[in-house]
Amino acid sequence: MKCEIINVGTELLLGDILNTNAQFLSNEISALGFDMYYQTVVGDNFDRLTQQIKISLDRSDVVILTGGLGPTNDDITKEAVADVINQKLILNEEIYLEIKKYFKGREMPVSNKKQAYIPENAHILNNNFGTAPGFVSEVNGKFVAVLPGPPKELIPMFKNELLPYFSKLTNEVITSRFVKIFGVGESLAADMLKDVIDSQDNPTIAPYAKDNESLFRVTAKSSSLEQNNKLIDDMIVKIKTVFGDSLYGFDDDSLEKVVVKELVDKKLTVSFAESCTCGLLVSKIGNVSGASVVLNESYITYANEAKENLLNVKKETLEKFGAVSEETAKEMAIGLYNKTNADVCVSVTGIAGPDGGTDEKPVGLVYIGIYYNNDVNVYKLNLRGNRYKIRDMASCHALNYIRLTIKEDKND
Amino acid sequence: MKCEIINVGTELLLGDILNTNAQFLSNEISALGFDMYYQTVVGDNFDRLTQQIKISLDRSDVVILTGGLGPTNDDITKEAVADVINQKLILNEEIYLEIKKYFKGREMPVSNKKQAYIPENAHILNNNFGTAPGFVSEVNGKFVAVLPGPPKELIPMFKNELLPYFSKLTNEVITSRFVKIFGVGESLAADMLKDVIDSQDNPTIAPYAKDNESLFRVTAKSSSLEQNNKLIDDMIVKIKTVFGDSLYGFDDDSLEKVVVKELVDKKLTVSFAESCTCGLLVSKIGNVSGASVVLNESYITYANEAKENLLNVKKETLEKFGAVSEETAKEMAIGLYNKTNADVCVSVTGIAGPDGGTDEKPVGLVYIGIYYNNDVNVYKLNLRGNRYKIRDMASCHALNYIRLTIKEDKND
Repeated sequence: MKCEIINVGTELLLGDILNTNAQFLSNEISALGFDMYYQTVVGDNFDRLTQQIKISLDRSDVVILTGGLGPTNDDITKEAVADVINQKLILNEEIYLEIKKYFKGREMPVSNKKQAYIPENAHILNNNFGTAPGFVSEVNGKFVAVLPGPPKELIPMFKNELLPYFSKLTNEVITSRFVKIFGVGESLAADMLKDVIDSQDNPTIAPYAKDNESLFRVTAKSSSLEQNNKLIDDMIVKIKTVFGDSLYGFDDDSLEKVVVKELVDKKLTVSFAESCTCGLLVSKIGNVSGASVVLNESYITYANEAKENLLNVKKETLEKFGAVSEETAKEMAIGLYNKTNADVCVSVTGIAGPDGGTDEKPVGLVYIGIYYNNDVNVYKLNLRGNRYKIRDMASCHALNYIRLTIKEDKND
Repeated sequence: MKCEIINVGTELLLGDILNTNAQFLSNEISALGFDMYYQTVVGDNFDRLTQQIKISLDRSDVVILTGGLGPTNDDITKEAVADVINQKLILNEEIYLEIKKYFKGREMPVSNKKQAYIPENAHILNNNFGTAPGFVSEVNGKFVAVLPGPPKELIPMFKNELLPYFSKLTNEVITSRFVKIFGVGESLAADMLKDVIDSQDNPTIAPYAKDNESLFRVTAKSSSLEQNNKLIDDMIVKIKTVFGDSLYGFDDDSLEKVVVKELVDKKLTVSFAESCTCGLLVSKIGNVSGASVVLNESYITYANEAKENLLNVKKETLEKFGAVSEETAKEMAIGLYNKTNADVCVSVTGIAGPDGGTDEKPVGLVYIGIYYNNDVNVYKLNLRGNRYKIRDMASCHALNYIRLTIKEDKND
């Protein structure tokens, strides 16, 4: 099946936002075994959009459009598709009810009614994360699918609604699992896995660029899910041999989810004393449902006085070694333990930039202290990037040190 | 001038890499005053590429191709362009010398000689960061430009070679400014501004979907930057009349940047006592460079005991009204002030979900307390979305309440 993607939106066309939807869909569509031929971006212009849909439907079997399903007059994707495939847009009462439900309590803007219109005969793709439904229309053996533009609506709709629809068109079963690695750079990770990747065709292994971590997608193809799972399990054993402890999880796992799960399993509590990360670290824990089981309280000690008053860091330590030092990180972690009695006490102090760096202590220098089982370890990092990137990477490393610290416990 | 971009490369088409070149070029081209009409991605396939170049040259005045200029057989962009515009590729001795120089010391691979071939009559675009030169060919009053794929070669070649070439072709100047609104949903904001948008053509106003806020891009076109700025300033006066205090900033402004700036200007300090947002709020402040001037310390009080011990919230208040209540939010803010003496003391308590909601206190119920000038105000929110969305929206609302609270001070 020849496939192409049309991303609709002037904000894409003018470069105001990056087209991550094209990458996501291309990846998914290729994994499904369809042949990707073209990606096109068109603005919110009826004539140019209809012309492009005609060109695409002429040369390909499957055309997937994204964006332009909003309530405003700018949003014209459905109208353009309906025009090209020569079908009327009809008010779908069920969808209309759903949209009204979405606004429960508040008044629904009149313009949102527009979102309940769908081409006649279309197969509806439900949207559980917004008001705009998607759809697929079959025309002369070809398929036009329409998805909403916001990735948080598009991704689940593709996975839960469109993928099952397309899977029926082919007899093969495709199964994917993501393998997540922390602490090994993208290029190095790909190099390390090169022999495994080259040695076989099924499952395939594709590296993905991802903030802060390395990600591989393992994809198996066969006639059954069971066989796919067996192929993938075998492959994961090989990948584990290469990466060891750096492999921290699969699919929807995140460092914070894995850490919270381990803490819950081991009945441990955690607390943080953050300087440069300034709440970003604890906020990652707080985003995991059930975090309240492992976290009671946490501190942001930005100023030196806060480090002294709240954590009992010695004035002399701060004067002699500075706030960003191994010694301060250590005293912060110990002071935090004395204050909170949490089982795992984590301190972070560093220079997030863009100002404040020196030759001796450059921007990106971060110390992380972990107090656990009457013992403190301090880790030193030299991170690169802008202020947010440094704070984010420091938070991820801290989570990873917690993971590795409490994991060792296993053999106790 | 109608313009479009063709990005050549199977790695883009399959989603292995993100298409940042399209975003960069679209931005630059729009700013130049050309009308961006299409972006297309094609794989390294001669037939599909020549077909696409024909379609693009047929409907647009300027076609910019990127990628496929490497030394391997996969690299076919020049060959495809030469074929479509019906010109021969000719060995350019000067470029050939440059490429040989690039390999000084090392032996030049034979395949690199291919890179010295350029269509006859083409205007050469020099590459100071790699071996592949670019070029522009003029054909019947239309232009085909070809740039290398790697961004570190493409960006300087565009800025230093292609931009000066194009600037000579146009006399118009285009200027854009983003206007940022908080607290008015996207659809409603567009409805409110509809009359203003419809009433004129220059400047144009385009709404943009953005997490948590509403964004409008105001774009003016004229013969000078001064005139554009005047057109935009006048339009912003109209937009302010519609949105009032909900208009919080422009361009790179964010709520946290605006709040930190206001706090610095007024010489105020701030502190937080966070429950459901769990550090997300303070981490936004911490991401603004210079935050240390306004923030000394901050607390995450997740457990009831932490609210009692750290903030002196009364046990009876927690028992009678619950942790998520106006009364608790109020006592948290007052307790925080007594502990930190910060000028603005902010408390957040709510139910982030997905569990923990009841009919009386559903997921998304959040109370925000602001202690300022011996006075406490508590705001009640009913937010929607997943756990992260609720925490993020609560943090943004808190920032906005700080902004509005200290703004009122102006009239003192």
